[in-house]
Amino acid sequence: MALMTISIQPIGVIRTPYQEPRDMPIQGKFDPTVQGRAEVFPEYAQGLKDIEGFSHLILMYYFHKVADEKLIARPFLEDDYHGIFAIRAPVRPNRIGFSIVKLEAVEEGRVIVFSEVDMLDNTPLLDIKPYVSYFDSRDGVRNGWVEKHFDSGQIPQRARLE
Amino acid sequence: MALMTISIQPIGVIRTPYQEPRDMPIQGKFDPTVQGRAEVFPEYAQGLKDIEGFSHLILMYYFHKVADEKLIARPFLEDDYHGIFAIRAPVRPNRIGFSIVKLEAVEEGRVIVFSEVDMLDNTPLLDIKPYVSYFDSRDGVRNGWVEKHFDSGQIPQRARLE
Repeated sequence: MALMTISIQPIGVIRTPYQEPRDMPIQGKFDPTVQGRAEVFPEYAQGLKDIEGFSHLILMYYFHKVADEKLIARPFLEDDYHGIFAIRAPVRPNRIGFSIVKLEAVEEGRVIVFSEVDMLDNTPLLDIKPYVSYFDSRDGVRNGWVEKHFDSGQIPQRARLE
Repeated sequence: MALMTISIQPIGVIRTPYQEPRDMPIQGKFDPTVQGRAEVFPEYAQGLKDIEGFSHLILMYYFHKVADEKLIARPFLEDDYHGIFAIRAPVRPNRIGFSIVKLEAVEEGRVIVFSEVDMLDNTPLLDIKPYVSYFDSRDGVRNGWVEKHFDSGQIPQRARLE
């Protein structure tokens, strides 16, 4: 199975104000004033039926500006290195990104306007799933190396790239 | 961009007791007694460094048993049809699956033993990300068409396929 290759095609494109990684917050939740647009290609627009009932969506996308893949990397929050599967950095095998965003509006039947933006402009969109609190919220979570950066109750300074 | 093709390769394989979709709960959270194994291929094992600090992981995988892609489909929970991006069904463009699972142990440096299993045996594994409550839990969520099935506080009967 190691040699199996899966081909995927974008279902749309994500437009945001962020042209460079350094402009972006590490998680969109930390800068809720910014809006983005997930423009679904017309041939997939029918798949958006009933999406307006959800306040939050899961967007999956392709880290198109990343050239290399690493197994050990440094997260934005600290200088220590961790395994790529223990951090959320884009320099990862298969370069699939994942964000939870807040649905603000659906325009023209195929454009999702959203807040909590943390992706670059022109990011290829791969999938949209409804965020369901009964499935996706968890209690009693241990947050590994991330925990120490949030235990003060404040958003860490390095949650935005310098 | 509509014609762009992205090639991805599995980083491992997921082993579970579920050979057929009808055996499986719709979300692993609803049958916490079952365990699965995410066997990361040896060449990616280094990427698991420090993953043990997290209680929950996000697994991304390929719905390998799905042949067709639909834009409108019926979810397991009810008989009404919805857009594919408003449900979690596998018959979706790009067929990328997403589950939050509970990390139980890491064995032999490359096998993640987990509970909250909702994928078929031999599912190709595409990525692992740490579940971080500060990023991934949301309050004040509106759950669209799903809400009515959970508002009694009980797990719906159809949360398991018949």
